Amino acid sequence: MSNVKKYTNKLDKLNFDKMYNGDFFLTWEKTDDEIAAVFTVADALRHLRENNISTKIFDSGLGISLFRDNSTRTRFSFASACNLLGLEVQDLDEGKSQIAHGETVRETANMISFMADAIGIRDDMYIGKGNTYMHNVVDAVTAGNRDGVLEQKPTLVNLQCDIDHPTQCMADMLHCIHELGGSDDLDTAIANLKGKKVAMTWAYSPSYGKPLSVPQGVVGLFTRFGMDVTLAYPQGYEIMDEVAEVAKANCQKSGAKFSITNDMAEAFKDADIVYPKSWAPFKAMEERTELYGKGDLDGIKALEKKLLAQNAEHKDWECTEDMMKLTRDGKALYLHCLPADITDVSCDAGEVAATVFDRYRDPLYKQASFKPYIIAAMIFLAKVKNPQETLKKLEKEGKLRHQGE
Amino acid sequence: MSNVKKYTNKLDKLNFDKMYNGDFFLTWEKTDDEIAAVFTVADALRHLRENNISTKIFDSGLGISLFRDNSTRTRFSFASACNLLGLEVQDLDEGKSQIAHGETVRETANMISFMADAIGIRDDMYIGKGNTYMHNVVDAVTAGNRDGVLEQKPTLVNLQCDIDHPTQCMADMLHCIHELGGSDDLDTAIANLKGKKVAMTWAYSPSYGKPLSVPQGVVGLFTRFGMDVTLAYPQGYEIMDEVAEVAKANCQKSGAKFSITNDMAEAFKDADIVYPKSWAPFKAMEERTELYGKGDLDGIKALEKKLLAQNAEHKDWECTEDMMKLTRDGKALYLHCLPADITDVSCDAGEVAATVFDRYRDPLYKQASFKPYIIAAMIFLAKVKNPQETLKKLEKEGKLRHQGE
Amino acid sequence: MSNVKKYTNKLDKLNFDKMYNGDFFLTWEKTDDEIAAVFTVADALRHLRENNISTKIFDSGLGISLFRDNSTRTRFSFASACNLLGLEVQDLDEGKSQIAHGETVRETANMISFMADAIGIRDDMYIGKGNTYMHNVVDAVTAGNRDGVLEQKPTLVNLQCDIDHPTQCMADMLHCIHELGGSDDLDTAIANLKGKKVAMTWAYSPSYGKPLSVPQGVVGLFTRFGMDVTLAYPQGYEIMDEVAEVAKANCQKSGAKFSITNDMAEAFKDADIVYPKSWAPFKAMEERTELYGKGDLDGIKALEKKLLAQNAEHKDWECTEDMMKLTRDGKALYLHCLPADITDVSCDAGEVAATVFDRYRDPLYKQASFKPYIIAAMIFLAKVKNPQETLKKLEKEGKLRHQGE
Repeated sequence: MSNVKKYTNKLDKLNFDKMYNGDFFLTWEKTDDEIAAVFTVADALRHLRENNISTKIFDSGLGISLFRDNSTRTRFSFASACNLLGLEVQDLDEGKSQIAHGETVRETANMISFMADAIGIRDDMYIGKGNTYMHNVVDAVTAGNRDGVLEQKPTLVNLQCDIDHPTQCMADMLHCIHELGGSDDLDTAIANLKGKKVAMTWAYSPSYGKPLSVPQGVVGLFTRFGMDVTLAYPQGYEIMDEVAEVAKANCQKSGAKFSITNDMAEAFKDADIVYPKSWAPFKAMEERTELYGKGDLDGIKALEKKLLAQNAEHKDWECTEDMMKLTRDGKALYLHCLPADITDVSCDAGEVAATVFDRYRDPLYKQASFKPYIIAAMIFLAKVKNPQETLKKLEKEGKLRHQGE
Repeated sequence: MSNVKKYTNKLDKLNFDKMYNGDFFLTWEKTDDEIAAVFTVADALRHLRENNISTKIFDSGLGISLFRDNSTRTRFSFASACNLLGLEVQDLDEGKSQIAHGETVRETANMISFMADAIGIRDDMYIGKGNTYMHNVVDAVTAGNRDGVLEQKPTLVNLQCDIDHPTQCMADMLHCIHELGGSDDLDTAIANLKGKKVAMTWAYSPSYGKPLSVPQGVVGLFTRFGMDVTLAYPQGYEIMDEVAEVAKANCQKSGAKFSITNDMAEAFKDADIVYPKSWAPFKAMEERTELYGKGDLDGIKALEKKLLAQNAEHKDWECTEDMMKLTRDGKALYLHCLPADITDVSCDAGEVAATVFDRYRDPLYKQASFKPYIIAAMIFLAKVKNPQETLKKLEKEGKLRHQGE
Repeated sequence: MSNVKKYTNKLDKLNFDKMYNGDFFLTWEKTDDEIAAVFTVADALRHLRENNISTKIFDSGLGISLFRDNSTRTRFSFASACNLLGLEVQDLDEGKSQIAHGETVRETANMISFMADAIGIRDDMYIGKGNTYMHNVVDAVTAGNRDGVLEQKPTLVNLQCDIDHPTQCMADMLHCIHELGGSDDLDTAIANLKGKKVAMTWAYSPSYGKPLSVPQGVVGLFTRFGMDVTLAYPQGYEIMDEVAEVAKANCQKSGAKFSITNDMAEAFKDADIVYPKSWAPFKAMEERTELYGKGDLDGIKALEKKLLAQNAEHKDWECTEDMMKLTRDGKALYLHCLPADITDVSCDAGEVAATVFDRYRDPLYKQASFKPYIIAAMIFLAKVKNPQETLKKLEKEGKLRHQGE
């Protein structure tokens, strides 16, 4: 039997007024209450769906997706979230469009948004570009709505930028809350996580240039909850300074510790949660962005070669069984945003040993399962004036999601 | 508060019986009443949506789109229109299909249409081909429906052919009606436009071979409303003779004037509406079609070179601030189907000066915003037996488009 | 007036309990009752739609399509079936995804299925691969659902594998039932087909390597209904042994005859149904699969050349007017899964003469029209606990599919 009261009661205690008609760029631009509201609505939507109750708040409307990088799971997560709320996904495939020849972001953003309630963008390849582009899109549709061009302002969901990967990291966190929080009550569960030790560590991958948005997103988010986050990487793999500052500021508020080490084992020692994952050095990504800007293809090739060689010096940064033994009772929760580079499975040497990965397959898939709900919650909170009332109404109407069950 | 009566009353006075189960190829194949019905239904659907009332007349069904040229705004307009009515868009991507090897149009058209209520086609590249192709599709599905293959005949919406661009030009006209008509009443607004001066002029673009469908569509449509339309282009950039004849015939009926000049300034003089836009010479497009037919790639390259050189002789055909000063009080309504070639923005020299374009950005975007509603109205009138009743029913039922508002 | 009683009464007499939460791989893995249930539900859904009654059993949910070969009609059939039931199609385009680098089927299958109620896969190119892949997907989502990763187990619909093409062959059979059964009652119609002669014959095509799934599917399915099936092909074009065994076993149960001949005319003699269609020799397809496995591109080229030459020796295997004259009263029902290689239309010499093909155009299109309903019925029976009740409920609620009719 469905009962959304638990979720609406929680929402009653939170202040998230500013999310209405807003957007979601970076988690640290949101208050603790707003983050909690996203978790709560995500859980409420999941609860309704699991009880076969429709959560369609839109009878029609489009959810626009724009992927500037290949994607399976984020693409399907966004599509699932839109479908869950009643929006039809329309993909802006820049290859099939006429955007190339000098059209401005402002123009494109308006042209695709006449019926759009949500826009999801993934643009993570170039430092200083992705997040900026998303802001340009939001500025454009905000002006369009203000000036009578658009009947509604679509809400932007950052599906990964150069700085943060909020839908991923919020799903990661909600997973931890459910796996390790030890309570159905969000506040209690979060309180129980206080003092847990998180190891966000670099890991070796034979490919190079993976975005920094996951490690940055994790240290920027997990530190808010009073967890002690250790960021570990080989020298040279620094993340953005600004994000490290965010983590430090979070800790000051939450009483947690944020430390950086160049020793993977040190991070794993007694960790409750480990997140070993490859990324590219921030400085190298900046350099690459500049080279692209200049169209210096030879420079890019040389940089790639250098980065691969640099990676190869750190093949020992692997999440092995021995590493896992160092963690709390040898049983830390292993996280990954997937797909992982699995040693002897997808490559000769990678981020994680096959036996470790295999043992955590179920929790890893569950971790991923939160993403559609997190995205849906972000859209919901931006588009629904009174979320509590709407959730109650959905439950009361009790329209079946699936008639045949 | 929603009130569709205004629109249904207007529809009561119009005769558009023949649109039911029909198609939309060229505006001049429709009566004045039929054109007025499209405008009225477009406004009614917009009115309902703005009042958060669902306009879904389909519970399920497909809207097939077939784009033989890259497209952003038309693609999204069609998708928006279908979504607004409850149809799911399914793109016929000829690259992903098996159509290549000798399958007939008749076969493909039927194979994709078992659940299709609408088919939108853009096929504007080859003279004598696009419109013909659309007719072949309609003949095929009409036969399919008659012979019991298809349960319904999908309605065709011409999303741009070699002759006309009806959804664009109808949106352009509806925009003028709302911007310059000075009345909420369609008849009054149209009457107020009588005698207004329209300058449909060629403009320089560094790209070549742009379709003729917009200038042809504009002179073929705007002349019906008693507006004096001047078509201006450098010698050699003639449009199809048949369409010029249509414009003349319209004028005889409406009492308007249709003139052709080779002087941009003359067209701009005292104009109330200006539409400066590049296109290719009709004769050259015919030649290109023949060359493609023969597979004469060298001939095509030579022709392209010639056309670019020809264009470059007319760089002075630009919508500058000085040109705009020639218009009525220097304040003509500037139209463009977008994207425009903006001097110093998207190219060194283009169709329009950046300051002019910038000043008209809002109205330009509003102009574009009518297209989804025009397309939806075309589908609505072809698929709904009693539009007035259905509009009233939608309002009365008052199903919310968006529950959270 | 709609009346689904006829269909629910029929279902009442059938035992198809095991289809609930099941999948559809091969027709011969299903009981006669289960096959009859698919036909009955397909007809019931069509009946409801023809009476303008919505058959949407899903308020939201995704239907995932994965095509490893180009496709128009199957793609649109699956999209139509999903739309008919209320599922939104989301295409897993492996080119746009990150699947390439070593991700397991198990992982991908779960990642795309959080909101998926159905997955349709076409994977017919490599012997021993397609069907196996589908089983891997089903195993993965079954485990995912069992382990709490997925809230529902999506049902798999085999949209063509290396062994069978069940949605095609079931549509073919349902078409025969309606065209030749001579009764509205399914049992009577099927009884009337008993003893009819079916010629499933190879035919020449200038392309090579067409899948064996259609001839295999036809002999594996049609023999169940007591029809005498003759499989004819030039020596060397054998089908899979296992499927020939299935056909023989069916005959033993149904009292029908299954014979193989190398003489096209012999098969056509007195046939009530003819299905002339090109395919590749099973052994050659096996060889090709091995060559691909080894990456032996030269070997593949050599094989292709050999196969084309082998094909060319049998240009006389064409469904000509003379061949048709051999059939029962010269009026056998001509079947093809489309697109056909039509002599003098799509090629110089092909599977069928243009006059024959043209005469059967209407029935051929009708044959194709059953596919969306067959697919929808397969999904319906896998996802609906009590199909009879749900069909009655849909009729009783009588939600209009299209409000404007």
